[in-house]
Amino acid sequence: LPSDERPDVHGSGASHTRAPVDVGLLSPVTVGFDEPVTDAAFLAALVTAEVALTRAWADAGAGEAKDEISARFGWAGAGQPCRTLSVEADALAEGSVAAGNPVIPLIAAMKAALDPSLRDAIHRGATSQDILDSAMMLLSRRAAARVVDHLTQAEGALAAFASAHRDQAAAARTLTQHAVPTTVGLRAANWLLGVRRARTRLEAVSADLPAQLGGAAGTLAALDRLALRDLGTEAAGVAEGLPAAFAAELGLAPPAAPWHTTRWPVTELGDALVQAIDAVGVLAADVATLSRTEIGELAEGAGGGSSAMPQKRNPTASVLIRSAAIRAPHLGATLHTASALAVDERPDGPWHAEWPTLRELLRLALGATGNASGLVDGLTVDDAAVARNLALTGGLIVSERLSIELAPRIGKERLDEILAAALEGEDLRTLVDAALRQAGDEGGAGDLLDPAAYTGLAATLVDRAVEGRP
Amino acid sequence: LPSDERPDVHGSGASHTRAPVDVGLLSPVTVGFDEPVTDAAFLAALVTAEVALTRAWADAGAGEAKDEISARFGWAGAGQPCRTLSVEADALAEGSVAAGNPVIPLIAAMKAALDPSLRDAIHRGATSQDILDSAMMLLSRRAAARVVDHLTQAEGALAAFASAHRDQAAAARTLTQHAVPTTVGLRAANWLLGVRRARTRLEAVSADLPAQLGGAAGTLAALDRLALRDLGTEAAGVAEGLPAAFAAELGLAPPAAPWHTTRWPVTELGDALVQAIDAVGVLAADVATLSRTEIGELAEGAGGGSSAMPQKRNPTASVLIRSAAIRAPHLGATLHTASALAVDERPDGPWHAEWPTLRELLRLALGATGNASGLVDGLTVDDAAVARNLALTGGLIVSERLSIELAPRIGKERLDEILAAALEGEDLRTLVDAALRQAGDEGGAGDLLDPAAYTGLAATLVDRAVEGRP
Amino acid sequence: LPSDERPDVHGSGASHTRAPVDVGLLSPVTVGFDEPVTDAAFLAALVTAEVALTRAWADAGAGEAKDEISARFGWAGAGQPCRTLSVEADALAEGSVAAGNPVIPLIAAMKAALDPSLRDAIHRGATSQDILDSAMMLLSRRAAARVVDHLTQAEGALAAFASAHRDQAAAARTLTQHAVPTTVGLRAANWLLGVRRARTRLEAVSADLPAQLGGAAGTLAALDRLALRDLGTEAAGVAEGLPAAFAAELGLAPPAAPWHTTRWPVTELGDALVQAIDAVGVLAADVATLSRTEIGELAEGAGGGSSAMPQKRNPTASVLIRSAAIRAPHLGATLHTASALAVDERPDGPWHAEWPTLRELLRLALGATGNASGLVDGLTVDDAAVARNLALTGGLIVSERLSIELAPRIGKERLDEILAAALEGEDLRTLVDAALRQAGDEGGAGDLLDPAAYTGLAATLVDRAVEGRP
Amino acid sequence: LPSDERPDVHGSGASHTRAPVDVGLLSPVTVGFDEPVTDAAFLAALVTAEVALTRAWADAGAGEAKDEISARFGWAGAGQPCRTLSVEADALAEGSVAAGNPVIPLIAAMKAALDPSLRDAIHRGATSQDILDSAMMLLSRRAAARVVDHLTQAEGALAAFASAHRDQAAAARTLTQHAVPTTVGLRAANWLLGVRRARTRLEAVSADLPAQLGGAAGTLAALDRLALRDLGTEAAGVAEGLPAAFAAELGLAPPAAPWHTTRWPVTELGDALVQAIDAVGVLAADVATLSRTEIGELAEGAGGGSSAMPQKRNPTASVLIRSAAIRAPHLGATLHTASALAVDERPDGPWHAEWPTLRELLRLALGATGNASGLVDGLTVDDAAVARNLALTGGLIVSERLSIELAPRIGKERLDEILAAALEGEDLRTLVDAALRQAGDEGGAGDLLDPAAYTGLAATLVDRAVEGRP
Repeated sequence: LPSDERPDVHGSGASHTRAPVDVGLLSPVTVGFDEPVTDAAFLAALVTAEVALTRAWADAGAGEAKDEISARFGWAGAGQPCRTLSVEADALAEGSVAAGNPVIPLIAAMKAALDPSLRDAIHRGATSQDILDSAMMLLSRRAAARVVDHLTQAEGALAAFASAHRDQAAAARTLTQHAVPTTVGLRAANWLLGVRRARTRLEAVSADLPAQLGGAAGTLAALDRLALRDLGTEAAGVAEGLPAAFAAELGLAPPAAPWHTTRWPVTELGDALVQAIDAVGVLAADVATLSRTEIGELAEGAGGGSSAMPQKRNPTASVLIRSAAIRAPHLGATLHTASALAVDERPDGPWHAEWPTLRELLRLALGATGNASGLVDGLTVDDAAVARNLALTGGLIVSERLSIELAPRIGKERLDEILAAALEGEDLRTLVDAALRQAGDEGGAGDLLDPAAYTGLAATLVDRAVEGRP
Repeated sequence: LPSDERPDVHGSGASHTRAPVDVGLLSPVTVGFDEPVTDAAFLAALVTAEVALTRAWADAGAGEAKDEISARFGWAGAGQPCRTLSVEADALAEGSVAAGNPVIPLIAAMKAALDPSLRDAIHRGATSQDILDSAMMLLSRRAAARVVDHLTQAEGALAAFASAHRDQAAAARTLTQHAVPTTVGLRAANWLLGVRRARTRLEAVSADLPAQLGGAAGTLAALDRLALRDLGTEAAGVAEGLPAAFAAELGLAPPAAPWHTTRWPVTELGDALVQAIDAVGVLAADVATLSRTEIGELAEGAGGGSSAMPQKRNPTASVLIRSAAIRAPHLGATLHTASALAVDERPDGPWHAEWPTLRELLRLALGATGNASGLVDGLTVDDAAVARNLALTGGLIVSERLSIELAPRIGKERLDEILAAALEGEDLRTLVDAALRQAGDEGGAGDLLDPAAYTGLAATLVDRAVEGRP
Repeated sequence: LPSDERPDVHGSGASHTRAPVDVGLLSPVTVGFDEPVTDAAFLAALVTAEVALTRAWADAGAGEAKDEISARFGWAGAGQPCRTLSVEADALAEGSVAAGNPVIPLIAAMKAALDPSLRDAIHRGATSQDILDSAMMLLSRRAAARVVDHLTQAEGALAAFASAHRDQAAAARTLTQHAVPTTVGLRAANWLLGVRRARTRLEAVSADLPAQLGGAAGTLAALDRLALRDLGTEAAGVAEGLPAAFAAELGLAPPAAPWHTTRWPVTELGDALVQAIDAVGVLAADVATLSRTEIGELAEGAGGGSSAMPQKRNPTASVLIRSAAIRAPHLGATLHTASALAVDERPDGPWHAEWPTLRELLRLALGATGNASGLVDGLTVDDAAVARNLALTGGLIVSERLSIELAPRIGKERLDEILAAALEGEDLRTLVDAALRQAGDEGGAGDLLDPAAYTGLAATLVDRAVEGRP
Repeated sequence: LPSDERPDVHGSGASHTRAPVDVGLLSPVTVGFDEPVTDAAFLAALVTAEVALTRAWADAGAGEAKDEISARFGWAGAGQPCRTLSVEADALAEGSVAAGNPVIPLIAAMKAALDPSLRDAIHRGATSQDILDSAMMLLSRRAAARVVDHLTQAEGALAAFASAHRDQAAAARTLTQHAVPTTVGLRAANWLLGVRRARTRLEAVSADLPAQLGGAAGTLAALDRLALRDLGTEAAGVAEGLPAAFAAELGLAPPAAPWHTTRWPVTELGDALVQAIDAVGVLAADVATLSRTEIGELAEGAGGGSSAMPQKRNPTASVLIRSAAIRAPHLGATLHTASALAVDERPDGPWHAEWPTLRELLRLALGATGNASGLVDGLTVDDAAVARNLALTGGLIVSERLSIELAPRIGKERLDEILAAALEGEDLRTLVDAALRQAGDEGGAGDLLDPAAYTGLAATLVDRAVEGRP
């Protein structure tokens, strides 16, 4: 490559001049929620994985360096990222080009930060993938916990919203058209069910995220030999226990086996993240639609205004969430493509494709769910608009009920005539009253034409959703 | 549309002249496995859903027509498809254009097949989506069970294969290069773990697949009013129980609520199917690679030959499985895109996008796993090729072990010299022996240079995988 | 594989009992438009490719069998599919499993239909991929031409629609909110521009679709040797000319070289098809939105009704087109995934993944554009709704103009007060008139508050789009 | 949102403490090539678009502020990014959350950097989307030019490589198996054709990338009114000319019309970028495969070594390129999904989904093609390995030729016997000689068994590719 193309990479001290690629300028949906998944956070996870490995060895009896190394890098406890990295993300990024991954330069950088006597303890028996995958799982576990928090907050707000609007009749729309009545609360209860399911799934997946420790090709051969060499033959079972000890230091699940090319931990997580974004995407799609100028039933609390067009009240959070919901499925699919193409004991490309993809998916999930939580907190209902829309079809929104309850009283043909006349603009109540009289039916229309009296089990469904009953 | 464009749709009796779009000509990976997901099978599921609804009403007390209708359409028991459809898929397909879905013409066709007195029992209180979604879940449950069978068969064969080759040392490859030794058995054990995880997940998802029953907008209002009208006011709780009764008739899980726009049942299934295809995709990628002329460690039992090129032994099943693995992630993503865009009480496009996508994904899963099961059954190992490849680096495949165990004895610099010389073609054993002598070390090389002695915990990992231990 | 799993494949005569996988039941968007891409059509293309090859050889001097073979299979002229196939798609599908593609059994079937003396002329020097790729291109060229027709019809209808509504002011919406006025015509003109660009691109790509002819590994070695053997050494240049001759018989572009693993002909076509579907997808998204009960500005001519809910006028064609637009990008991406993974001289899976994917994408393009053409033909505008919506913000839809033209006359602060008051419901015209008077400005409001007077260059843009001017 | 969640966004001066999300740590394939698409570069493009707008107005006669503003922000000439931004990307990112896009805070920041008398000239008549889309096109045009450079360099290197190895026979592989001979040069020529096609397409698309200028809803109404207000009624045509003038300042194509919801400029670019990545992906797939330890025909110049495993020579650049090729199709599809869902005059999510996606796709294209250019420069052929592999099937690699040329001389049955015996390990030449003698054929085997004599038109195809002949 010509030197003017990659000056920063090969230059000695020029690395600090590289501008960061992404500070969030093109990603408003995630700004403010990115912190758990920055390169800095990933770097901390990498360092933490290396330190955790020295600690796992210490548990097995080869731990003279444990305390010094832990102290040097700011070990902060199981599942917590280290605090004193002594390594620069920029430099590692540059070093990763020749090596193909950032762990190779990381090892050198960490060793350089240590007294020579401690250096052999670093990366002992591990392969790059052990550290990178474990770091990714640590990052993921922490980010997913944040996403779960966002979803839990949204669930609370949705339950309150659904309860508050449990009995507020509103037009239900299918294929864009008013169909029958529903309630504002039931719509929110359905959002709640989708969010809760996604949160439950993400919690389950997060609890399963395993550490990775298998050595160069997943046989743990180097770990085994190092244990035998340094701890003696009585250490025969030591290597077998190291993955679980390593996982415990990282607050991750112990791996059933090395999963260098068995990538369900990545795809199951990816799927759960996409599902979470889907769930808030549905909410956002409904809020955006119901915020339309002509509909106006819902409004975001902090709707984006426009100085030149003060009549606008942009559903900004919904728009941003939707942008994430459009992108996320493609990111999840990328993880599956990579997973399905894993070959050999470490694949020639698919593994590398996972890294930025999973990070971006975590980031989108953080942003989409974080925005959703805020959105629901501030969501307001325009009762007048709800009522106005419900009346928009001149009462025909209960036509399904009429076919059930009025047709037997006045005949199906008569009902069809009435509905046709109402469609042309005649007053439905007048027509129904006349038809009943004509049929000699003195029962009267009662609440037949009241949309609020034709919401079926909406209230029950709201209660069940709010209470979390099956 | 010009009449010459769509002659079959609008013509009176010309429908039988339409050629089927797909009989499998472009889909060899699924030929022979398609049956559970043909349009005919889906049609049967649609009819079954309608009949099941009449049966659920019967359980609730409104079932005078139950037996006659069940008999008319060949009801075959809970979870089984009806056997006497009396409806043509072709005609329904044509009728679905104006209606937007095939349920509308289905209702007419089923009613036409019944005595007028029975017709009102059909589609009672339901909406098209209730029937279509429930039919899709019924189809899915049956197809998924078949996929689970395929995976279970593959697991059995993989366990046997892994056990049989538990201790057969082979070259492990990372980033295409020989790294350290592994075993033929461990590679298969890793396939097994991926397949088992996918099967377990698919079983869990399948058990959760719910029926759909919510009426026009998910409030169950029509169901409720019909119950009150026909069963009297004491039927107040009837509608609430109908979804579970309907689900029981279909052998599906009772829905927590209508899920018209809460589409996790579709996406969780889709994700599990993609995961299953990923898992066999990895196996296929490895078999295809290890079948390469230059590698030749594995061969499919029924490798595709070529009359003009008899030296070829194409890994045909692997190739076909890989074609599915390349496609599946994109299909799974389509389901998520549709899910995230669900809006209103029935969305204007996303729902319709699911139908052919989920069917194709089920089909691919059937084909990919069915082929995988057969592939593993016939898989053969060329022991000579395995041994030849293992020796290909002149012993350097154990260089990692040498750095652990030989370096302390002869010094790291000396080892580096040896490795460099071996890389240039000198005999590694001679070099090692000389270095030990030179260092005054009389311990001898022992099994240091034996790849089979450097497979770490491979055997243990095989045993654990085969036994299903964590 | 167990025999009960794949009975139809291995059975002797049972093949005719296999139900077709897909007759369109799950694909209403394509019903009536599928014909150019059915398995039957693909089978005809395969046969045509084989016959064309015999004709290309004949042009080169090795054509004694040409007329008989052409007659036997119903050769119908360059670029036309053969009419007398003598082969069953079902049987080929079954035969493709062991072979990995349908061409192997095709060759046998075609030979079996010929006098033994003619059989050697079939598949002379070709490889399966030559025939399958060429057949796919032939199918694609014909299907793409139909798509181009659909788009051209839609362009005509859109031009007429845009002209008819050139000056009809309507609310423009950004981020769901009324922003400023636009015109009904300009919205249609924008659809037109998208459709025209897509049509132009698809025409360009279609004209480039090449035949494939390279022999087993793209060297044309067999073709060359056969020519030398049978035509003598003076035939030295024959093989080089065969691909172009073959392409001419098929009405395809001559290939620059065999493109067995250089798959731009597939991905450029795929991209153009997705672009076409995008273009009508935008139109459908707008029609669906503007058909909403609360908006009601547009209606499809043949809106789907509902007997139980007569107030509904479902934008069915738009919904179906949207279902295609949601799916298409994922299909296009599948083609790119396959393209990027092509390896060796014929890849181990990616090529096979293309076949059903490209067919489904062609099918979706046929259906989406076919429905779009019909949709535009029948599209109606509800003038009253357009006007009602335009007035919905009480005149504030021209607030941007006021900030430009009124602010200089009354001051920006005064304008802000007016707009705030109008937002609260006060009459904008009264406020503006008062402010002008107060400012001593006697110019009057003129057309300042008339939305129709603030449509900028909409009319010009419509004219340019309709006339196709840049 | 809880304050501890988004401390940086709402804090007054804390913004500088936010860590960048991405400095390349997870993206080794792009490190060193990212510069044209960093957030800093995008910020420069945004500022440039705003300055270009003031310059376009100046051309139209409203340009008193032009020079001062150009100077203030470091205007650098048409198509060049401004050099003195006076705005922080971080701060804009934070400001974009409430506004939904970074242009709103950009305008404020740019105005704040100017004398109050000049402020009105900023963003005059434009909408956020005008600036953001134009900036994205400016960024794209510059980045695409760099990609074109990379591809052009790769073409040069590939042409040299193909010529150098024009006549070097090598095994061709189909479905992983040796099929017939090809040449090292032809394989490279095919890579060249794919790269050249992609480069040609990208150049064509780049030349078409339009500026965006339409005002709030694409009618140019504000631009028109401002022109009339400030330049007088003789300025009637001014607004119509502004988009082309604006485009000229930015070095972009003049737009046929505002394309706020007609997104082919984005998807055509995306498709071309994916095609470019596909093309180098194929090259990388082949290099990775041919670098396998068992194959060893090719090696990257700077293959990644491993200190512990010196026998490894990782094809690192190929691996990294493949990681991009796996991801890119999904990014391209995201752009299509967004395009197809564009609705209204500015859509509620799809537009926002484009930004990070297109940037990441440009970035991947820069990195993948940049790495490819370097890879080809350093690519080496191991002649011995090529020859060894070619001989691996004991001569059967020319079996196709034997069926053409030997079968007529000794009979097809005899040939089949020979091939079967050779498959079992007998010497092919001996067998052939014996068969010829037995058949009384004294012509001898000649070069029948020489793979190098059965490469067909490989040399011609190389020449045509290298010379760029069709």
